[in-house]
Amino acid sequence: MSTRLSDLGEFGFIERISRHMILRHAGVIHGIGDDASVFEPKPGCVMLLTTDMLVEGVHFLEATSFKLLGRKSLAVNLSDIAAMGAEPMDAYVCLAVPQRLTVEELEELYQGLREMAQEYSVNILGGDTTRSPGPLVINVAVTGAAPREQVVLRRGARPGNLIYVTGWLGDASGGLDMIREARPWPREKGATLLRAHLDPRPHLAEGLFLAQRGFATSMLDVSDGLASDLRHICTQSGVGAVVRHRSLPISQALREYAEAFGLDVLSMALGGGEDYCLLLTVPEHRAHELERSFGERFGHPIWPIGEITQGGEMLLLTEKGELRPLPKAGWDSFAP
Amino acid sequence: MSTRLSDLGEFGFIERISRHMILRHAGVIHGIGDDASVFEPKPGCVMLLTTDMLVEGVHFLEATSFKLLGRKSLAVNLSDIAAMGAEPMDAYVCLAVPQRLTVEELEELYQGLREMAQEYSVNILGGDTTRSPGPLVINVAVTGAAPREQVVLRRGARPGNLIYVTGWLGDASGGLDMIREARPWPREKGATLLRAHLDPRPHLAEGLFLAQRGFATSMLDVSDGLASDLRHICTQSGVGAVVRHRSLPISQALREYAEAFGLDVLSMALGGGEDYCLLLTVPEHRAHELERSFGERFGHPIWPIGEITQGGEMLLLTEKGELRPLPKAGWDSFAP
Repeated sequence: MSTRLSDLGEFGFIERISRHMILRHAGVIHGIGDDASVFEPKPGCVMLLTTDMLVEGVHFLEATSFKLLGRKSLAVNLSDIAAMGAEPMDAYVCLAVPQRLTVEELEELYQGLREMAQEYSVNILGGDTTRSPGPLVINVAVTGAAPREQVVLRRGARPGNLIYVTGWLGDASGGLDMIREARPWPREKGATLLRAHLDPRPHLAEGLFLAQRGFATSMLDVSDGLASDLRHICTQSGVGAVVRHRSLPISQALREYAEAFGLDVLSMALGGGEDYCLLLTVPEHRAHELERSFGERFGHPIWPIGEITQGGEMLLLTEKGELRPLPKAGWDSFAP
Repeated sequence: MSTRLSDLGEFGFIERISRHMILRHAGVIHGIGDDASVFEPKPGCVMLLTTDMLVEGVHFLEATSFKLLGRKSLAVNLSDIAAMGAEPMDAYVCLAVPQRLTVEELEELYQGLREMAQEYSVNILGGDTTRSPGPLVINVAVTGAAPREQVVLRRGARPGNLIYVTGWLGDASGGLDMIREARPWPREKGATLLRAHLDPRPHLAEGLFLAQRGFATSMLDVSDGLASDLRHICTQSGVGAVVRHRSLPISQALREYAEAFGLDVLSMALGGGEDYCLLLTVPEHRAHELERSFGERFGHPIWPIGEITQGGEMLLLTEKGELRPLPKAGWDSFAP
């Protein structure tokens, strides 16, 4: 079965995909089908809005599963809301669709979006769908809400703060490498790496926990790569950092994979990007309480990977105990 | 002077364009530069959000002026907020940029965005900029606010309501035709048509006026073409309509242009699209008050073009007094 969008028309398509888009009715006044959505802000909260554009051939490959693509398009935006210590509210999805795509493929994409929305009680309240003479383009915007004092920006890091991450570093980069290079690697060994790249989980519960308990002085999600993202915190907070190579959480799966193919696991962990765990800074006197309560709540540790310093320098403490400049690696959309 | 984006890098570019983006500080807690924007909802108001994607080769031509393109990308979203009877708050701009574009061209685009934002006191609070292996893609999202009872949806039209539009129909279609067909036409005669297509004005003041005074029972902006847009009102309200050919506001400029090149001015007025005036329905007993007060306030008439009827039929009363089905013309993103 293969239906063309031109058979269905724009409004037929909107009609078809706009079912089951509202999962949480509180505060929603009007969703898809008018000039704009209408909703009530959450009482006692400030609002947040984040938006990301994913372009075929830049952020994902043509061969990707449409369902996973739908999930990931929403997940990366939810991850931004997580990084602010807020709760996600509603999503808006705009698509530019190349002619070769069938209605069934687009429905798979929406199935993925809807699945991810359901997992985090997020509504899909609007968007736009149009034709593309080139690549598939997916633009998602997500609104969020939080009590004002709970919102965590990037600029609050202070010298002496400890630096933490909430998940493995480099796994997504390993998964991407596996697909790109078509490496022969046993499915069961590569599964977590592939999942990290194709189906990342937004750390929303972790973000809320860290913000509500007031642990984080600054926070963001690791999207461009640890080194690049930590640089944002340092620049905006006017501080420096020392990252300890030995403390970086690198999974056994990534170590084995990197070793097998002679890859540099450190540059994957520092520069790979798309890990979508949270990177945050915490006052030293709260470190013990954080590590204990986070472990109790999430069943795995939160990893201390270094310390914020005075001055703007970003350093790496190597396994041999040397201090070196932290490599500048990281994703840049415009890199040649 | 011609700078490549790859020379500047993603963060260099964000740094460069993110100046002067906040024009109205009230309620803004954090703009560009973090994982999400943070803002306070307007007290006593519900919130609105609209988002539109413009794709090169589908919605605009490569040759378009980047400044006008920036203005229009924001204007079409502001027009959606106008159509809800709300006030715009903040804009979010995502771009997928082909390699051939220079930094200067992109800055022109942002200059246009900023100009339009300034005219309506709208902030640019965030967005995303990335590479495109294909066309330039511009996605804009705009938030708005209004007292809940002031918001005008599409579904409130009732039999007996009069149908009005706030501006000329078909001018934008004339301007597009002039560019596409490269017609020889005196500049001074074609200026308003070209402007209607290239630099549309969102009818925000009109939308607010109509909503605040409670005139409109349903409203939307004419983006796909009058016939197609009126169909949305009829479908969502469960009503029909009769449109009088004789009453359609068709400018002298369009009449002359259409006559000179043997074009059907009626189909341009009904199906052309992109007029971005407002189409609304009004209870008959308020018609006189509306026409008088609108004229006083805006210095030009609001045009009554027909009437809402029972049943779902949409009819055109021809100049000869015949009732015919309203042509289905109108923009469909997926039309072959």
